[in-house]
Amino acid sequence: MLRCWRAAAAISAGSGWGAGCVRGRFSMAKSKFEYVRDFEADDTCLPNCWIVVRLDGRNFHRFAEQHEFKKPNDDRALHLMTKCAQTVMQELEDIAIAYGQSDEYSFVFKKKSVWFKRRASKFVTHVVSQFASSYVFYWKDYFKDQQLLYPPGFDGRIVLYPSNQNLKDYLSWRQADCHINNLYNTVFWMLVQRSGLTPVQAQDRLQGTLAGDKNEILFSEFNINYNNEPLMYRKGTVLIWQKVNEVMTKKIKLPKETEEKEVEVTRTRTKVVPLHCDIIGDQFWEEYPEILAEDS
Amino acid sequence: MLRCWRAAAAISAGSGWGAGCVRGRFSMAKSKFEYVRDFEADDTCLPNCWIVVRLDGRNFHRFAEQHEFKKPNDDRALHLMTKCAQTVMQELEDIAIAYGQSDEYSFVFKKKSVWFKRRASKFVTHVVSQFASSYVFYWKDYFKDQQLLYPPGFDGRIVLYPSNQNLKDYLSWRQADCHINNLYNTVFWMLVQRSGLTPVQAQDRLQGTLAGDKNEILFSEFNINYNNEPLMYRKGTVLIWQKVNEVMTKKIKLPKETEEKEVEVTRTRTKVVPLHCDIIGDQFWEEYPEILAEDS
Amino acid sequence: MLRCWRAAAAISAGSGWGAGCVRGRFSMAKSKFEYVRDFEADDTCLPNCWIVVRLDGRNFHRFAEQHEFKKPNDDRALHLMTKCAQTVMQELEDIAIAYGQSDEYSFVFKKKSVWFKRRASKFVTHVVSQFASSYVFYWKDYFKDQQLLYPPGFDGRIVLYPSNQNLKDYLSWRQADCHINNLYNTVFWMLVQRSGLTPVQAQDRLQGTLAGDKNEILFSEFNINYNNEPLMYRKGTVLIWQKVNEVMTKKIKLPKETEEKEVEVTRTRTKVVPLHCDIIGDQFWEEYPEILAEDS
Amino acid sequence: MLRCWRAAAAISAGSGWGAGCVRGRFSMAKSKFEYVRDFEADDTCLPNCWIVVRLDGRNFHRFAEQHEFKKPNDDRALHLMTKCAQTVMQELEDIAIAYGQSDEYSFVFKKKSVWFKRRASKFVTHVVSQFASSYVFYWKDYFKDQQLLYPPGFDGRIVLYPSNQNLKDYLSWRQADCHINNLYNTVFWMLVQRSGLTPVQAQDRLQGTLAGDKNEILFSEFNINYNNEPLMYRKGTVLIWQKVNEVMTKKIKLPKETEEKEVEVTRTRTKVVPLHCDIIGDQFWEEYPEILAEDS
Repeated sequence: MLRCWRAAAAISAGSGWGAGCVRGRFSMAKSKFEYVRDFEADDTCLPNCWIVVRLDGRNFHRFAEQHEFKKPNDDRALHLMTKCAQTVMQELEDIAIAYGQSDEYSFVFKKKSVWFKRRASKFVTHVVSQFASSYVFYWKDYFKDQQLLYPPGFDGRIVLYPSNQNLKDYLSWRQADCHINNLYNTVFWMLVQRSGLTPVQAQDRLQGTLAGDKNEILFSEFNINYNNEPLMYRKGTVLIWQKVNEVMTKKIKLPKETEEKEVEVTRTRTKVVPLHCDIIGDQFWEEYPEILAEDS
Repeated sequence: MLRCWRAAAAISAGSGWGAGCVRGRFSMAKSKFEYVRDFEADDTCLPNCWIVVRLDGRNFHRFAEQHEFKKPNDDRALHLMTKCAQTVMQELEDIAIAYGQSDEYSFVFKKKSVWFKRRASKFVTHVVSQFASSYVFYWKDYFKDQQLLYPPGFDGRIVLYPSNQNLKDYLSWRQADCHINNLYNTVFWMLVQRSGLTPVQAQDRLQGTLAGDKNEILFSEFNINYNNEPLMYRKGTVLIWQKVNEVMTKKIKLPKETEEKEVEVTRTRTKVVPLHCDIIGDQFWEEYPEILAEDS
Repeated sequence: MLRCWRAAAAISAGSGWGAGCVRGRFSMAKSKFEYVRDFEADDTCLPNCWIVVRLDGRNFHRFAEQHEFKKPNDDRALHLMTKCAQTVMQELEDIAIAYGQSDEYSFVFKKKSVWFKRRASKFVTHVVSQFASSYVFYWKDYFKDQQLLYPPGFDGRIVLYPSNQNLKDYLSWRQADCHINNLYNTVFWMLVQRSGLTPVQAQDRLQGTLAGDKNEILFSEFNINYNNEPLMYRKGTVLIWQKVNEVMTKKIKLPKETEEKEVEVTRTRTKVVPLHCDIIGDQFWEEYPEILAEDS
Repeated sequence: MLRCWRAAAAISAGSGWGAGCVRGRFSMAKSKFEYVRDFEADDTCLPNCWIVVRLDGRNFHRFAEQHEFKKPNDDRALHLMTKCAQTVMQELEDIAIAYGQSDEYSFVFKKKSVWFKRRASKFVTHVVSQFASSYVFYWKDYFKDQQLLYPPGFDGRIVLYPSNQNLKDYLSWRQADCHINNLYNTVFWMLVQRSGLTPVQAQDRLQGTLAGDKNEILFSEFNINYNNEPLMYRKGTVLIWQKVNEVMTKKIKLPKETEEKEVEVTRTRTKVVPLHCDIIGDQFWEEYPEILAEDS
C-alpha cells in the first residue's frame, strides 16, 4: 500500500497502463499528467553554509492559556519542548546543535550536510512534523493529568549562514532574546501575581525601564536576585551531542564454565545532552570546538 | 512567556537594553546580532497561481509494518489520514480542495490567497505540523487498542500551478497514481495472501502485465471484479467544502410566556466533506464549479 | 580557442590531465576544483507563465544630457531603441511581443517557451547584452554626426505572469506610465522652452495638476492639442511579428527555352513590425489574437 | 523624457490621473495596473558571500570564424575582452578581482557589497550590458580595419561562494580550464596549420593523450617548449586594483611671481591592472592579501 510497493508498481505500470485499462473506463494514462512534476522548483541550499531551521508554536499564547501554563515559565512545557527537540536531533541527520527558549527551537544542520541533497523543503518539513508529532506523543509524560485539548501547530523557516561567526551571532541573537523576554516577564508577573497590578498597569510600570531598573524592582520589591533565577529560564536550552559512557550489566557464559556470570560492560554512546549555559561569549565555543569543526 | 509578551518586551527593550544590563554581565546588546535576520530569504509565492502542498509519510513502509496495517488497504489508517487532512483544512486558511491516497495528501490553496503574504515556508510548515500533531492526537480514535509506538514524521513540498488545467492535471496525476498502485497492490496481495506466493514470486508474476492482465487475474483466479472494490481504495479521498443544513433543537422562552419551549433551528454551516469519486473527468468539476471559481 | 574546442578538449582531458602535467608544475587537477559548480543555483522559470524581461538605460538622464537628446522626445533615440529591440527579437527565440517607451523596453517570451530550459539568467542576460551591443552598433545610423561618447549600460529584470490578463495588465501599466510621463514632460518642456520658466518654476506650476489641467495648459497657452502629438510619443512602440509579402524579381530559364526570363516571385516572410497604438483596450488584442494564442 | 522626469511625474500623477484624463479616452488609471509589480520576485543574494558573475560570448565560434580570429589565440580579441572587463570594473561598484580567458570573464563582487541591495539581476545585467556595449565601442581600437559585422551577444550567470577557499577554488577551476584548453588548442592548430592534418585527423591524433603527450608532440614535432608560450595564453588575465603613482607636469603661478612655473606633481590613483600569473597556488594570494581581506 505504501511507498515500497509503488516503486514496484511503477516498473510494471510504466510500460503498460493505458487506454484499455480497467475495461476502458479511463481514457487517459498517468503519463499524460506527469508533466506537472516539472513545476516543482529546485530549492537546494547553497553548499558550505550552516542551515538553520527555526520553529515556533502557532498561537501559543492561546494554547498556553487553555492548558494553564504556569507564568512566566512552565517547567512542564519547557521540558516537553526539549524532549521534542531531542527526538528531532535523534531522528533526523546532521544536526550539530539546537537552541530553544519559550515556544521556539532552532536546529543547526552541519555545513557539509548533504542530507536529502540539501533540499530546503525536506529540512524544514521533517523538523516541524517530527517536532509536532512528538509534542502530542510525549505530552502526557510531562503534563500528567492535564489533558491535551487539541493538536497544536508550528511554523518553521530556514536560514543559511555562511560563516561560523554568522552562526554564533544567530544563536546569540536568540539567547539575547530569551534574556530580554525572561527578565521582562519575570518582573511583569511578579507585579501581577504578587503586587496585584492588572496586566495593563504592569505594562505601564515597565514602560521605558532599562534592564537595571527591572533588576532593581525585582530586588527591592520582591527580594529576588534575578541572577539566582533558574538557568533554564534565563539562558534557554542548548542541545549538543556528547559521548557518554554507559555501564551495563551483562550476563555471559564462558565456554568452559557451566554457569552464567554477570559482568560490567562500558559502552560509549553519543547522546543529545541539554545544557543551560551562556553561548554568547567565547567560553562555550572553546569548550566544545567540535560543534563548529570544519569537517562537521 | 510567549509571543504575546514578546511584543511588549520588544517595545520596552528597544530603547534600553544595553551595556549595563543585568549588572554588566552581558557586554553585548541584542541589536548587535540582529543583522542575522537579513539572511532570511524571501520565499513569497508568485501571485495568481494555485499553491499545492503535498505531504508524505516518512518511512511509512516500516511504520505500517510495525503497526500491523492491513494490506493492501487499512481502513483505520486511511480514515485517520483523512481526519488529519480535515483538521488541516479547518485550522488553516484558504484551502479549496484536498486529495489523499495511501500515506500522502495534497492541499490546494486558493489562487488569490494572501495568507501569511503567500510565504512558501508558512504554507508548507503549517500544513505538515498540523497534520503530524493531528495524526498522533486522533490515532486512538481509529486504532483503538493498537498502541502508537513512536511519533511519525512527514515530509512536504510546495508547487505552484498557474492555470486551472495545470491544477486539474496535477490532481489527475495523483488519482491515476492511486489507481495504478491500488490495482497492482490488490493483485499482489491476493497472490501472496490467497495463493501463497512469496513477495518475490508475486512480483515476478506481475512483471510486465498490463492493467487488463491484472483485472483478468483478479477475476479468473480470485473471482474479484476490481470495479466492485471500495471506491475509497480505487479513487482515494477528495475533501471539499460543502454547505450543510444542521437542524438543532433549542430551548427558548418568549417574553410573554412563562415556560420554555423547544423549537427546531436550521443552521447552514460550511463543512469539509470527503468524497471518493473520479476527478480526472470533467463531471466532478462541472458539479462543483465553485472550487475553481475565479474569485476563489 | 573557443567553445567548440572546449568540448573536444574536455573529452581528452577528462581521463588524463593530472599530477604530472606540464612537467609537474601544476600539482592540482581541474577535477579537484569542479565541486564549485554545485554552488550554481537553479533558476528555472515556472512553466506555463509569460516571461517578461524589462530593461532600462543606466543613468540615462546624464547620458541624454551628454548626447544632447532633444526634449521631451528625441526621435533618433527612440528609433535607435526600437532598432535594438527588433534585433533582440530577431536574434533571440520565442519573443511574442515587445513594448518600449523612453529608455525602457519590455520583451515577452511565450508561455510555452523552453528556450535554454527557461533559465531566468539566460533570458535576462541575452536580452540586455544583445540590446546593449546593438545600441552601440547601430548608434551612427541614427545619430549621424553626434559622436557616442562612452558605452552605455542597461539593467534588466525578469517577471513571470501566469494569466493572459496579468500580462495585458503589465503592458497596460507600462503604456499608462508612458502616457503620464509624456503628458507631463510635454507641458513641462513647453513651459521651459517657450515660456522661459526655470525647471523649478515649471515643476511648481505643474504640482498637483490633473491630466485635464495639463491638457488645458497645452491648449490655451501653446495652442497644442495633446491628442495631435505623435502617436509614438503618446503610446510608445509595440513590436509584433507579422507576415509580409515580399515581391522579388528572379531570373529563371525553363528547360525547353534557351533564354532566361524575369519572373516575379512573392515570398511570405515573418518580420518584426513596429506599431504605435493603444494596447490598454481590447481592440488591439482582438486584432492580433495570435499573440496570446494558447499554442504561442 | 527619462528617469529624472518620471519621479516628478509620479508625484503629480499620484493624486490625480484618472477617469477623466485626456478627455475621457482612457477609462483606466495606472494604479489599476500597478498590482503587476507584486509579481516581481525578490532575488537578493545571501549576505557575507562572494558574488561571482561569469559571462560568455554567445556563438563565439561562429563569431571568431566570421571575424577571422587568429588561432589558437588572437591577441586583438583577448586584449579587447580585457579592455571591456576593465571598463566593467571601473563603471560598476565593489568588484574586487576579475579573471578572463578565451571568450569568458568572471567578476568577483566583494562579500560585504550592498550595491543595489545585492539584487542578483542588477549585478548580472549591469555586468553583461556594460561588457557588451564596450565590446562594440572599443572594437575598432583593437581590430583596426577588420570591420565588426554584427553586434555580439553574451550570456551571464551569478554564483555565490561562502568562503575564501571556495572563491579561490572557483578561480583555480577557471584557470585550470584555461590551461587544458590552451594546451589542447596549441597542439591541435600546430597539427592543422603546420602538419597539414584535417581537423578530424588532428582530433583523432589527440584523442586520449595526456598533458605530457601533448607537450612531447609540441617539442619533438614543432620544436616548441609549451612553457615558453606567452603567459597571457597559458594563464589568462587577472584584473586587480592597484595603487599607481602618476607623475604629471603642472603649470602653476606663485602669488609673488609673475611667471608660470612647471612643477612635477605625483598623484596616487587606483587603477585596474592586468596580470598573467598563476592564481592556483598560494603565492598570488599572499602577495595581494587585500583582495580577500575581511573588510573587502
